[in-house]
Amino acid sequence: MMTDADTRARAVAERLIAAEGTAPVWDVRLDEAREGYARISMTIRADMLNGHRTAHGGMIFALADSAFAYACNSRNDVTVAQQASILFLAPAREGDVLVAEAQEQALVGRAGAYHVSVRNQQGVAIAEFQGLSRTTGGVVIPIEESKS
Amino acid sequence: MMTDADTRARAVAERLIAAEGTAPVWDVRLDEAREGYARISMTIRADMLNGHRTAHGGMIFALADSAFAYACNSRNDVTVAQQASILFLAPAREGDVLVAEAQEQALVGRAGAYHVSVRNQQGVAIAEFQGLSRTTGGVVIPIEESKS
Amino acid sequence: MMTDADTRARAVAERLIAAEGTAPVWDVRLDEAREGYARISMTIRADMLNGHRTAHGGMIFALADSAFAYACNSRNDVTVAQQASILFLAPAREGDVLVAEAQEQALVGRAGAYHVSVRNQQGVAIAEFQGLSRTTGGVVIPIEESKS
Amino acid sequence: MMTDADTRARAVAERLIAAEGTAPVWDVRLDEAREGYARISMTIRADMLNGHRTAHGGMIFALADSAFAYACNSRNDVTVAQQASILFLAPAREGDVLVAEAQEQALVGRAGAYHVSVRNQQGVAIAEFQGLSRTTGGVVIPIEESKS
Repeated sequence: MMTDADTRARAVAERLIAAEGTAPVWDVRLDEAREGYARISMTIRADMLNGHRTAHGGMIFALADSAFAYACNSRNDVTVAQQASILFLAPAREGDVLVAEAQEQALVGRAGAYHVSVRNQQGVAIAEFQGLSRTTGGVVIPIEESKS
Repeated sequence: MMTDADTRARAVAERLIAAEGTAPVWDVRLDEAREGYARISMTIRADMLNGHRTAHGGMIFALADSAFAYACNSRNDVTVAQQASILFLAPAREGDVLVAEAQEQALVGRAGAYHVSVRNQQGVAIAEFQGLSRTTGGVVIPIEESKS
Repeated sequence: MMTDADTRARAVAERLIAAEGTAPVWDVRLDEAREGYARISMTIRADMLNGHRTAHGGMIFALADSAFAYACNSRNDVTVAQQASILFLAPAREGDVLVAEAQEQALVGRAGAYHVSVRNQQGVAIAEFQGLSRTTGGVVIPIEESKS
Repeated sequence: MMTDADTRARAVAERLIAAEGTAPVWDVRLDEAREGYARISMTIRADMLNGHRTAHGGMIFALADSAFAYACNSRNDVTVAQQASILFLAPAREGDVLVAEAQEQALVGRAGAYHVSVRNQQGVAIAEFQGLSRTTGGVVIPIEESKS
């Protein structure tokens, strides 16, 4: 069931994507957004490969970090990443479609903990990510606008 | 003093950059490369900003991860990232020139530990990164070629 | 339903605990063990407090790391921690009963990714932990013995 | 040269150790303390071993985390750990004397980044640690007392 909180979460994610300079470059698709949750996907292209000709760790991290951002801002409170750790488990190749799924683990005061898994189109685990967020004050979408 | 090991490290970094799909997109400059060390820089552009209009964490990580790659492959043994952790200390803005400096902390068998600091043009600490690498076998530059 | 794999996981955890020098000192209780999963608990005592008189980060990590060890060795293949990251979300106090729950996130070749949550008796999130394991060869419980 | 700041750093570390419940149990020695820096040591005993009969990751982390605490509290502002990541590079054995050396990497507002290396008596790298601290307000040693 879609709740108002989930509708807001989706609106926040769409607003963030619309404001990103990176969105048109990376072509990240928003597959699902709910409160404390986001699932996005991205296709690995030739211009995302590292010197060993596999997906650049920076691009895998960027995908996970984007899912983290949509999940941790989902309550419409401006929230930023303070720290993130990523485990690289298997290489991704050109043409792979990576899916990043972010899930809230805990919220304590201004701090939030999030897990993001990154899988390829066969379900192989490419990376596991854990991030620490901090709510800084302010809203992503102004209240007047979010009411309309 | 420039040693043979340092000359090799520079050649490896240049080879990796030449093979990267990301290099022309990100315009990363190789400022210095020595054995177990690399310093690179990148200018934050509008197409590198996140939804809060600061540098995307993925791009800051990508810069640090690239410096890590050049440092951990510097002995010409193919080496990949297994894990990385990044602390985001201050936001970077459009136009900022970020410098990432990677330094080897320890090598034990196939495992390596690396620290990367990311600073802006005023020396402000933007991020601190720690990575775990693993040497997988094989060389970056074939021996015949590296002898010439 | 309890499977043979789960019975083996419990036997491995009990064997590890019996071999630990730390087990009698920390008084860790094994609440549940299944393949790729472990839940344990520990009471914070005065001799586990840091200089600010809250639970020492080392003790919170030690509890999470123990749960990680029981989960990643659960297939009876000797497995060690390569890396771990912990987020400290709320302080724990003397007398608190902390529960650490470890869950496998992914297994790829010799590498494993595990998440461990640490909660107090009220369910407050004290810490979130992510660990990278590596299977090294050898078994925890000899096969002859595990058959009996 | 020993500065006033370094004298204060040493006094803070000694005060924290005196208040720790863990200090007498772990027998941590304070080898050096300066502003933003601490070096401590600990001998691995039988009651610090894990189920594989090497030093428990929790004890290696605890040592690194203690050095981190003395370094990040060294300005006498109460500071706590928010996150830490540790790379386990080589096992430590019963009887090993481990030295943890903590060094400040950056301070930005309330946030601090610290690196801690853990070496054994032969200089072998046992672990590399990176921690994120946050200053919370309040002092470790009351000002009146610190003036005397």
